[in-house]
Amino acid sequence: MTQQTKVPVVAVVLAAGSGVRFDPAKPKQLVALNGKPIVAWSIEAFENDEHVDDIVVVVNNTVREAVEQLIDDASYAKVRAIITGGAERSDSTEAALTTLADAGIPQDAKILIHDAVRPFVSRQEIDGCIDALDEFTAATVACPSTDTILLTQDLGDREVIQSVPERRHSFRAQTPQAFRFGTIRDAYAKAAGDPDFRPTDDTRVVVDYLPDQPVAIVGGSPRNMKVTTQDDMPLARALANALAGAPRGPQNERQRAAKEQLHAMFGKAFGVEGE
Amino acid sequence: MTQQTKVPVVAVVLAAGSGVRFDPAKPKQLVALNGKPIVAWSIEAFENDEHVDDIVVVVNNTVREAVEQLIDDASYAKVRAIITGGAERSDSTEAALTTLADAGIPQDAKILIHDAVRPFVSRQEIDGCIDALDEFTAATVACPSTDTILLTQDLGDREVIQSVPERRHSFRAQTPQAFRFGTIRDAYAKAAGDPDFRPTDDTRVVVDYLPDQPVAIVGGSPRNMKVTTQDDMPLARALANALAGAPRGPQNERQRAAKEQLHAMFGKAFGVEGE
Repeated sequence: MTQQTKVPVVAVVLAAGSGVRFDPAKPKQLVALNGKPIVAWSIEAFENDEHVDDIVVVVNNTVREAVEQLIDDASYAKVRAIITGGAERSDSTEAALTTLADAGIPQDAKILIHDAVRPFVSRQEIDGCIDALDEFTAATVACPSTDTILLTQDLGDREVIQSVPERRHSFRAQTPQAFRFGTIRDAYAKAAGDPDFRPTDDTRVVVDYLPDQPVAIVGGSPRNMKVTTQDDMPLARALANALAGAPRGPQNERQRAAKEQLHAMFGKAFGVEGE
Repeated sequence: MTQQTKVPVVAVVLAAGSGVRFDPAKPKQLVALNGKPIVAWSIEAFENDEHVDDIVVVVNNTVREAVEQLIDDASYAKVRAIITGGAERSDSTEAALTTLADAGIPQDAKILIHDAVRPFVSRQEIDGCIDALDEFTAATVACPSTDTILLTQDLGDREVIQSVPERRHSFRAQTPQAFRFGTIRDAYAKAAGDPDFRPTDDTRVVVDYLPDQPVAIVGGSPRNMKVTTQDDMPLARALANALAGAPRGPQNERQRAAKEQLHAMFGKAFGVEGE
């Protein structure tokens, strides 16, 4: 069972990060793994999932041209808009939510927000989010922590341990993070009134500002790694080479035909800037 | 300043893990990285640190012969004993503590407990532990979490988020975990009376059973990774190759001479089984 009632399923791929920890001269979302830019791996994960209807890609001005080009070259049929994000991750999410609201998307639409720099998200993780939203208003992919987590407090010149949560209840947040549209809009609206609002994570916005809404955990795996620094590249390359055997590109005839409709749809479906 | 008062500094290298998540046929602590078994990388980190006096290696019966052989071949001068651990990590720590107590080690000795499968521990991390014990009775290397941590509760068929700690106060425990000898002995003695005692971590024993003792955080890094599954091997190999340029082996003349004394010392310094 993948959807009890058919509502739009929209993936938001966040590719606006500046990635200064990686290489200031080369945005990490454009680095190729097995010949394909990281952001393309991420877009294709949603493009190739039959349960996903639409994709919105959030970029910054540095990567916009390259991302537009690769979307055009690959003929992705589900990409409806490429919009400009903000300085912080939450600014980019808010830009996407505003775009979706302007396009008149229904409150019960399922929104999956994904970091572009997690290129190896699996079908199981994406569909797990979509399914979880039948029962919960929010869900996030998360991987059980193999390390013991330590929560600390600051003693001025030194952090000391405050508590050590049980490892079986300690998860590392990944993405997609998934929400009914009305829920994430509501959480961001409430958060906007808080001057200290600086979330590192969309799920946190729901946890902090809609505390009565339980957020489901969807089982993730180490494969769904985040490319943050150069240290992550050896594993990323190894995974890309291992996964490249399976066909992931959308270059078939049906999708070429869909491409013809793409240009007509841009600026219409969502009323925002297109390619 | 590395020690205000000179007390023995003993490294306990835990190499008794069965590592069933890695490869049941090949114990991961014996897998070679750049030609050197993982356990040898770990032992050498302490062997080559001038602030460490003694090393105890904890093994299981499967790896004992291979570990004895590699210690003999490499002529490590600080390895005082190779002892047999237990089924759980905490059993191995307890075996080491009993050995040290039987050898009459003073209560204020500094004990650094290290996972053998963290082969790339740095000098800075080891010395950071030794220094922290001048101010605290317990300390652990820990790496700031780059992921948002989610603490969950079980709803029966599904985990849901219970809280999302601040990322700046979320650390992933690594090793060494360091203690004044009297502190860790005391914590384990108190824990022994608890039938639910199943720690995944030595630091947790102090946090849970000596809650009035603050545990200091010593800054770790992703380089100090744990080799847990095959997925960790590409990064481990890349790190080993990058680090192999620096001389780490103890094969110089001074150490060869020290080797001559080694056999005499086994069974004497600590009164336990030797090579």
